[in-house]
Amino acid sequence: MIMEGRQRVVIENMQPMLDCGKYPIKRAVGETVTVEAGIFADGHDSIVASLLYKKQAKSVWQTVGMTELGNDRWQAGFAVSETGIYEYTIKAWIDHFKAWQRDIEKKFNAGQDIGVDLLIGARHITQASNRAAGEAAQTLLEFARSIENKENQQRAFQLAMDPLLVNLMEQYPDQELASRYAYTLKVKVERSRALFSAWYELFPRSANPQGKHGTFTDVEKLLPEIADMGFNVLYLPPIHPIGISNRKGKNNSIKAKADDPGSPWAIGSPKGGHKSIHPKLGTLADFKKLVKKAQKYNLEIALDLAYQCSPDHPWVTEHPDWFRWRPDGTVQYAENPPKKYQDILPINFETPDWQALWQELKSVVDYWIEQGVTIFRVDNPHTKPFLFWEWMIKKVRDEHPDVIFLAEAFTRPAVMYRLAKIGFTQSYTYFTWRNTTHDFVEYMTELTQLPVREYFRPNFWPNTPDILPQHLQFDHISIFLIRFLLAATLSSNYGIYGPAFELCEKKGLPGREEYANSEKYEIRKWNRNQSKNIKKTIKQVNHIRNNYEAFQQTNNLHFIPTGNDQLLAFIKTGTTKNINMMVVINMDPHYRQSGFVEMPIGDLEIEESNPYMVHDLVSDEKYIWQGSRNYIELGHETVPAHIFRIYPRLPSEEDFDYYM
Amino acid sequence: MIMEGRQRVVIENMQPMLDCGKYPIKRAVGETVTVEAGIFADGHDSIVASLLYKKQAKSVWQTVGMTELGNDRWQAGFAVSETGIYEYTIKAWIDHFKAWQRDIEKKFNAGQDIGVDLLIGARHITQASNRAAGEAAQTLLEFARSIENKENQQRAFQLAMDPLLVNLMEQYPDQELASRYAYTLKVKVERSRALFSAWYELFPRSANPQGKHGTFTDVEKLLPEIADMGFNVLYLPPIHPIGISNRKGKNNSIKAKADDPGSPWAIGSPKGGHKSIHPKLGTLADFKKLVKKAQKYNLEIALDLAYQCSPDHPWVTEHPDWFRWRPDGTVQYAENPPKKYQDILPINFETPDWQALWQELKSVVDYWIEQGVTIFRVDNPHTKPFLFWEWMIKKVRDEHPDVIFLAEAFTRPAVMYRLAKIGFTQSYTYFTWRNTTHDFVEYMTELTQLPVREYFRPNFWPNTPDILPQHLQFDHISIFLIRFLLAATLSSNYGIYGPAFELCEKKGLPGREEYANSEKYEIRKWNRNQSKNIKKTIKQVNHIRNNYEAFQQTNNLHFIPTGNDQLLAFIKTGTTKNINMMVVINMDPHYRQSGFVEMPIGDLEIEESNPYMVHDLVSDEKYIWQGSRNYIELGHETVPAHIFRIYPRLPSEEDFDYYM
Repeated sequence: MIMEGRQRVVIENMQPMLDCGKYPIKRAVGETVTVEAGIFADGHDSIVASLLYKKQAKSVWQTVGMTELGNDRWQAGFAVSETGIYEYTIKAWIDHFKAWQRDIEKKFNAGQDIGVDLLIGARHITQASNRAAGEAAQTLLEFARSIENKENQQRAFQLAMDPLLVNLMEQYPDQELASRYAYTLKVKVERSRALFSAWYELFPRSANPQGKHGTFTDVEKLLPEIADMGFNVLYLPPIHPIGISNRKGKNNSIKAKADDPGSPWAIGSPKGGHKSIHPKLGTLADFKKLVKKAQKYNLEIALDLAYQCSPDHPWVTEHPDWFRWRPDGTVQYAENPPKKYQDILPINFETPDWQALWQELKSVVDYWIEQGVTIFRVDNPHTKPFLFWEWMIKKVRDEHPDVIFLAEAFTRPAVMYRLAKIGFTQSYTYFTWRNTTHDFVEYMTELTQLPVREYFRPNFWPNTPDILPQHLQFDHISIFLIRFLLAATLSSNYGIYGPAFELCEKKGLPGREEYANSEKYEIRKWNRNQSKNIKKTIKQVNHIRNNYEAFQQTNNLHFIPTGNDQLLAFIKTGTTKNINMMVVINMDPHYRQSGFVEMPIGDLEIEESNPYMVHDLVSDEKYIWQGSRNYIELGHETVPAHIFRIYPRLPSEEDFDYYM
Repeated sequence: MIMEGRQRVVIENMQPMLDCGKYPIKRAVGETVTVEAGIFADGHDSIVASLLYKKQAKSVWQTVGMTELGNDRWQAGFAVSETGIYEYTIKAWIDHFKAWQRDIEKKFNAGQDIGVDLLIGARHITQASNRAAGEAAQTLLEFARSIENKENQQRAFQLAMDPLLVNLMEQYPDQELASRYAYTLKVKVERSRALFSAWYELFPRSANPQGKHGTFTDVEKLLPEIADMGFNVLYLPPIHPIGISNRKGKNNSIKAKADDPGSPWAIGSPKGGHKSIHPKLGTLADFKKLVKKAQKYNLEIALDLAYQCSPDHPWVTEHPDWFRWRPDGTVQYAENPPKKYQDILPINFETPDWQALWQELKSVVDYWIEQGVTIFRVDNPHTKPFLFWEWMIKKVRDEHPDVIFLAEAFTRPAVMYRLAKIGFTQSYTYFTWRNTTHDFVEYMTELTQLPVREYFRPNFWPNTPDILPQHLQFDHISIFLIRFLLAATLSSNYGIYGPAFELCEKKGLPGREEYANSEKYEIRKWNRNQSKNIKKTIKQVNHIRNNYEAFQQTNNLHFIPTGNDQLLAFIKTGTTKNINMMVVINMDPHYRQSGFVEMPIGDLEIEESNPYMVHDLVSDEKYIWQGSRNYIELGHETVPAHIFRIYPRLPSEEDFDYYM
């Protein structure tokens, strides 16, 4: 027989919940967790439900009263203000006093005698008085005595409905038979950079303006420009010694020439492995200086974490067990038959020595954290075991909760989502291959729906050193603007690989989505001052992103119809200051497009009969609109987008400050 | 650090799963459990997945190989052949041999040297040989040796692809690093009556043809007629002594006359309570004789389980703690303020003596099981605690797995579904209040979708002693036919309250959904031989239900368009014999209706270019159709429905037997 069979309230199907509570949902500091559950009991008694939450280490729960939404679904929310793990669950109980109040009101209004009922109510109140103390207990007792006095039922009834009594009864509920949800769930709270970031990727070895092998000092000199464009993360491909055996030449050719620098992802040489720095980039001291200097420009350095080795990596000789060996005594290189990648050795995670391997891999992260790095862009995490990532990320974050991991997993959706669920902070996405308005409505709906929105934070990249998409190779400069605007306004996390992107580099290998003369295999000399560039728009949009919190989150997105497939329009709602933004993008790089946006004026608290204002922060034009349907027209030769701040009513004189 | 970090396969989101495995899904004997899960690993190795299942008491798992559906979803199924609990889970692992085969095929076809690869393959095969024994081990060893012999790569490659080798390697896989799903789930398998039943409800006290107080012996005399109509469950309202205090009179009047029999649901008098029989119905021996006799007619007796008491019930004096007492010393009767139900006392499940109460309530069920009862229709289960039902039903079914409980919970969806989830076999539904074609498409979609379909078995009732819906009060006899046809063909479980239903009794209380002169409060004399009745159609449709297994389940339903809102059409697919049925019902009781059904000929394995036949089992007419779009016309004066058996091709001479 069960211990307590009198817990009559059922709490079921609590949301959000991932894998029955095995994995936490995610939030950034300042965000809210909205919890829903089915809560009900047998019969017709009144129910009270409380959402409980606390930081994991604390022992006392905070409580928030839940509200019924209808159909036995209840809801409440709490804001998270610190990084770390919060726990939450639900408690609910029958409130006999509340049901009693509801019932005597009906009886009294129907003119029935409520003498005996008043005695019952006085009992409830006396019991609450026993649970209370001091003044509250005394006040409750007085209520009970006055209500018991049934000579004047009218008066007793009024007392029974007294707001002070209601309030006191709510403070001292009878929770003896309260039910508790079967699971205590977790939310992992990260710093705000997890949710809002603008990444700039560059190859340090191409940072020298004369085309010599670049150094960390050359990168330092670029910081002002990158910061001026408004980025806040500077991501560097691997900075370690590069292998010599089977080194790749220009354009991924199999034979390298003597002066070819090799791919930075072929990590390791006799000069060191994942904890060493390529000598031509500089010293550890130079690197630390760069990290410090970047901080002054509000830029964080993100390092590449690529767990793979060149055949010359020290691990190959020190830990031969961590690799696969072929029956002919050679080490197994990476393959995708019939293709061979002989400059790269995959790590054998099935090695019996896996525990030492895991520790060493984690120590790489620990090492760079010690040097001041707090963000890691992880190369191909989907080719290493999930259990490893789950363990490693948790361990690192237990000591360093501010560390951010971006997963570069261009693979199947289930695998992408799993990596996010087990710990990665942000994820690369299919953004690069989404083209039409329909594509974006569909994809953003997938990303912002339950349960994906609770744990998967997209990071949108219009290009990467590995991907120069077809549309960037053949179209006008306006396509660079369009792709940039899409990435930077649809997603609060985005990044570009520069300077290829802002300089509108479009030369690809014929028929492929690869850059010609890719920096992966050679040093490029860039003219950062060329006239063909989109830096001004990048700076302007990053400025808007930094100033309006509607762009600092991703799930606050609502598409709106325009009647024209070439015009993508959406609202981003503000949460703290209630400032809503609307973006309209002309998806057509070749022609001017027009349409009518259908504003959800009800949701925007705009009155049908009143004019309101939208202010385009790109062009600085202001428009007076009325009602839901409004004309939009966008060219393809200037910036092909409106980024409107929406003013739900016209400014009056006293609003002067607000509207400035 | 975790114990084994080398389990590389992820198994997630296994379906069906209820409340993280807390509750079992349900099946009837002979049904199939189809299991799906997301299964994938890091990298590009080949995966093998097995569905494991067994009876709970057994120790050895049965296995079924799973198939990939695409997008990393895998599927497999197993049939359940015995009542009781089955368990199921999933195991999956990397198959290096399979990946090796895939890769050398690509290399060989690209003309590459596969000498070293052959040695690697031979290693895999030798290891499998070590896991095997006897002849299999020997054969594998021979394969390994021949493949190692790389002098003739062409020959070695062919051997590596040999189906015998593939088969042996599948039999002796390397499961050392296999992953197992985090949960072992359960399916509760019940006898087939849980899924397929036709209920007939009658008041035994109205069973006497002369209008005297009926007896069990009178009921016995009705068995042939009820069995002839094709029913298989005979459900009797409470058969216990009826209270005298505050007894209700005719039409629920507050004052009963001396000869008013009272409501059978006001259980208990000085003559006994829930384990006693109303003296006017007969003795326990008479009851047991009825149960036996009914069995001969393939009818099971279902008893009403109404856990409530009249003020005269022995429990009130023997266990005053099981009731609520008011401060004036009176016992608390049922209320829905301002309404009072003074003939009924609810049980106080919050009593400190709840454990004794639960045992006594369960003993009522045990008692009637001893007398031969195997089906209980439970009155208002939603007014008693969920924990009680969960405990009670589980306890009873542990000893008597064949016992069926039907929940009469006309309440909110969440509560209805919860009762089904925690143990009730079948449930009353909102069928009675669904009217239009749109209503039924929507409601059946809700009932047959995941996860509801896995645990909620609807039982459709066109009427009950409590409900004479508006449509039955005002319409033609055809509405009785329509409502019957809907109930009996949409749902494999259905019931009618007779003889009111088959005699088309339509007299209600003005403006209410209640029968005038309800049998709940008086004895009715019925003329079972009156000409106005729908017995012939009931018999015919029950005969079809008994003969075609497509009607013996509910989730095999697919609506098809007719282009006319008044024509509801749907397919019921057959599973074991592959005989598919189509039902078309004219929802309009007043007019003839026509339309075009859109047959899903692809799903029905009908060829576009070939004629096929539909045979209406109601009218015995046969139609030759071709293609998807076919004309349908139904009157309102005859039986307003087609029940077609679909023959996907025209009969030829050799099909003679098949088409008879």
